[in-house]
Amino acid sequence: MAYKSDIEIAREARKKPIQQIGDRLGIPAEHLLPYGHDKAKVGQAFIDSVQDRPNGKLILVTAINPTPAGEGKTTTTVGLGDGLNRIGKKAVICIREASLGPNFGMKGGAAGGGMAQVVPMEDMNLHFTGDFHAITSAHSLLAAMIDNHIYWGNELDIDIRRVAWRRVVDMNDRALRQITCSLGGVANGFPRETGFDITVASEVMAILCLAKNLKDLETRLGDMIVAYRRDKTPVYCRDIGAEGAMTVLLKDAMQPNLVQTLENNPAFVHGGPFANIAHGCNSVIATTTALKIADYVVTEAGFGADLGAEKFMDIKCRKAGLRPDAVVIVATVRAMKMNGGVAKANLGTENVDAVKAGCANLGRHVENMQKFGVPAVVGINHFVTDTEAEVQAIRDYCAGLGVEAILNKHWAEGGAGIEATARKVVELCEGGTADYRPLYPDEMSLADKIEAICKGIYRADGVQIDGKIRAQLKEWEEQGYGNLPVCMAKTQYSFTTDPNRRGAPTGFEIPVREVRLSAGAGFVVAICGEIMTMPGLPKVPAANSIRLNDAGQIEGLF
Amino acid sequence: MAYKSDIEIAREARKKPIQQIGDRLGIPAEHLLPYGHDKAKVGQAFIDSVQDRPNGKLILVTAINPTPAGEGKTTTTVGLGDGLNRIGKKAVICIREASLGPNFGMKGGAAGGGMAQVVPMEDMNLHFTGDFHAITSAHSLLAAMIDNHIYWGNELDIDIRRVAWRRVVDMNDRALRQITCSLGGVANGFPRETGFDITVASEVMAILCLAKNLKDLETRLGDMIVAYRRDKTPVYCRDIGAEGAMTVLLKDAMQPNLVQTLENNPAFVHGGPFANIAHGCNSVIATTTALKIADYVVTEAGFGADLGAEKFMDIKCRKAGLRPDAVVIVATVRAMKMNGGVAKANLGTENVDAVKAGCANLGRHVENMQKFGVPAVVGINHFVTDTEAEVQAIRDYCAGLGVEAILNKHWAEGGAGIEATARKVVELCEGGTADYRPLYPDEMSLADKIEAICKGIYRADGVQIDGKIRAQLKEWEEQGYGNLPVCMAKTQYSFTTDPNRRGAPTGFEIPVREVRLSAGAGFVVAICGEIMTMPGLPKVPAANSIRLNDAGQIEGLF
Repeated sequence: MAYKSDIEIAREARKKPIQQIGDRLGIPAEHLLPYGHDKAKVGQAFIDSVQDRPNGKLILVTAINPTPAGEGKTTTTVGLGDGLNRIGKKAVICIREASLGPNFGMKGGAAGGGMAQVVPMEDMNLHFTGDFHAITSAHSLLAAMIDNHIYWGNELDIDIRRVAWRRVVDMNDRALRQITCSLGGVANGFPRETGFDITVASEVMAILCLAKNLKDLETRLGDMIVAYRRDKTPVYCRDIGAEGAMTVLLKDAMQPNLVQTLENNPAFVHGGPFANIAHGCNSVIATTTALKIADYVVTEAGFGADLGAEKFMDIKCRKAGLRPDAVVIVATVRAMKMNGGVAKANLGTENVDAVKAGCANLGRHVENMQKFGVPAVVGINHFVTDTEAEVQAIRDYCAGLGVEAILNKHWAEGGAGIEATARKVVELCEGGTADYRPLYPDEMSLADKIEAICKGIYRADGVQIDGKIRAQLKEWEEQGYGNLPVCMAKTQYSFTTDPNRRGAPTGFEIPVREVRLSAGAGFVVAICGEIMTMPGLPKVPAANSIRLNDAGQIEGLF
Repeated sequence: MAYKSDIEIAREARKKPIQQIGDRLGIPAEHLLPYGHDKAKVGQAFIDSVQDRPNGKLILVTAINPTPAGEGKTTTTVGLGDGLNRIGKKAVICIREASLGPNFGMKGGAAGGGMAQVVPMEDMNLHFTGDFHAITSAHSLLAAMIDNHIYWGNELDIDIRRVAWRRVVDMNDRALRQITCSLGGVANGFPRETGFDITVASEVMAILCLAKNLKDLETRLGDMIVAYRRDKTPVYCRDIGAEGAMTVLLKDAMQPNLVQTLENNPAFVHGGPFANIAHGCNSVIATTTALKIADYVVTEAGFGADLGAEKFMDIKCRKAGLRPDAVVIVATVRAMKMNGGVAKANLGTENVDAVKAGCANLGRHVENMQKFGVPAVVGINHFVTDTEAEVQAIRDYCAGLGVEAILNKHWAEGGAGIEATARKVVELCEGGTADYRPLYPDEMSLADKIEAICKGIYRADGVQIDGKIRAQLKEWEEQGYGNLPVCMAKTQYSFTTDPNRRGAPTGFEIPVREVRLSAGAGFVVAICGEIMTMPGLPKVPAANSIRLNDAGQIEGLF
């Protein structure tokens, strides 16, 4: 059986005018700012007008640790949204926007796959509605204003060796990772070392995704630490006076983007913070708006449940006052086999024992979700090579944990292939068993919070935090940042810091190499391993084959 | 009498839905891609469908050399468009887009002023439809791909000291003018010197504005010279394989943006190349499309007629096959007085003799336009301090040159205040006297072309081009670039290279300091004086006062 590619399916989509999609959510056309005929931003006045409504139910889609076999978290999120709509529920999907730059390195990521996709896929992988460009602009303005302040006399007494605010570009450009700027003499300023990160790593991105509204956005931008003086006291964005102009640059970017699934169901695609040095979730404003206008909101978080779901619960939900009602944990037979020790080349062969062995990874994530007080269901994302015995092995394993595992065929069948899971999710949401609680209280010390995650979620024996880092955490606590949550930056491939240790490892510790304060976003980043904030292009970048063909279609992007 | 500010007037505009504006031009709604309710891009399929239609008449609005007194070239362009529509003609305005970055240095430029404005003014000074962001992305991709090529083995044998392709950002950031990149060790590449220009200075911008269609765009992008080898042979964008992906990034940016005037008449606002190192006109695709769907197209060119109109005639019209039918030369009583030696502080006092003396500047521009074979009218942009005697002095002077000068009050009255000029323009267009010819033929040598402009337009006694520069020009001629037009980069404030020499100076030479080849855009730049391609921010940047007020309005941008 030959399958169509994602892009072929996406191009055949019978899209409805975006006004019709908005109309189903009760958004009047005048409050829907169109970008072309198939994308729109939801106006602030409409968002303000729905604030007094009750919230719908919130469902998080998360997953086992990612493997090269692929899991299909976004595909499940999109499929589940379609499935809920199919069984008569008013459901909205909330997912992240894609970063432009990386698509020119490796072939671009679709939004979902198969029959469970969000469209227009090409736009979403290019400029979309310009949100990331606005973030780049706002970030760049602050950077220019800092150096401009130094140039004109440095009244704030910034130590030019301690400018913390780097620059950003939405492109994989390793040559900009580390630079010396302000060369060329008096007219160009004071030479100093700095560098560029990719736009999604900007604290502005994290803030845009956590801010409740434009006022909150401006306050948080002002709170960002951009440099230090020789006495190590911080200089804030507010001291530079940039937060007002940055907010102006971001005012449209703050409005959620509405698009549709292949089955013409509404999807908010908004925001895209890094999932390591930031929290990796779509915007709070999209999620909270969706909860006001839909009965069910399906969203996802970056990476596996150990990183993504933990940050969703401990950062996004805590900060935004969200209370999730159900969790879907995505697993695949293939990924279970990889976790059970099978090499990628052999994934096509039935191996029930490997599935059983690999289920330990899934099991730990299932247990973890229970720690947040939210009921879960396991969604097995079906692949054509799966055998009934393999699927049954996962079902049996989950039954032993008291959790139902349901086989989903949304990739091949769209919403019709995931109706059983949709019904189960409704049952969990309406059952009233959800009692969301974050893993640790605000009052816990920063070091203890790190330890709570490492022991409670990763199952490490302990945490290694050296004296210098402990002193830094202590200092931030004294400055009033002790109540912030922590944001773990660690490999997504393992519960440990070794990406090769699959399954459910035990007998390891988590070394914290560095900590960073994102004072505007409102979290302390604990870096455990190599974190790359500016990717490079491969030897033969995808850009070499990307072009418009004679029919005006984009080739090579997917 | 108290006047409202431009932004107050703009905010009170009774904008019509952009579909209604498109409808008047016969653009079906499905071919109009909306960006919000008041901006749209004209679809490529529609543009293709009108190619066989006859062209309307093309009117260029240009001006005397700019002075601090202000001239009102864009205001006249907008007013004339409204005036033509008022007298029953189907007219479209074509102007340039504004660059985002500089608005955060000095207060932003409106699109026109008073009652002769294009709206939505705020959007047009911020992200608008994202065209400049797309240009930044395309430029950045090529930059990343060049360093990536070097990183992975440098098969093309690029001399890293001779990478000609700098980077760009749409922000006034002097710290990036000169940098050392690829620092930090083996993983980040080979350290080398480079720097950033502002986005409007990118050759990609010039190409977007000169390309006839997407195919032509791709070819021209491929033609750009991005680096040289040790033997000084050029490396093209095509060698890097970036032109296809750049075209994909630019496909929407190539489509003209439709907005409206305060009087609800259609305006294309598209493209914005630098007026010194590039040709300073709006896009060819906007102008040629407008000519197919309107009977009169009013456009403008950057700076005064010596730079702007000359480049419009010798670069844009020559390359795009345009044949302008009439020219409006904008002058003001105040600017004539400044050209006549009056200081800015004294411009409010009647001084007929100074007006008469200053008219020499206007007169030279009038004569120059005749060299292109296009009939002209002088448009006096009225200021409230003008006296009748001063205005009459300009009228009399122009009558002596055989050119009519008409007083225009569009700033205060909109299209109604410029009807006489509109009627005169129609008369000139329909009179059939226009016989456009460029100043010099393609076959002339590059050095001779420079001399032709300096002597013919600036009235210099001669040109200083040293042996090294002459050798460079010779080399380009041998490489097949001899047929390109030249693009002069010179101060806009004077016919000479000294910005303080107003009026109609004689007895000077033009020194050419440097020449650059824009092989993709298709011109050779002759740099005569200091040209800044990356501005800085002032000590107190406008950004410090830009913010959203409680009503959600932008303060401080204008």
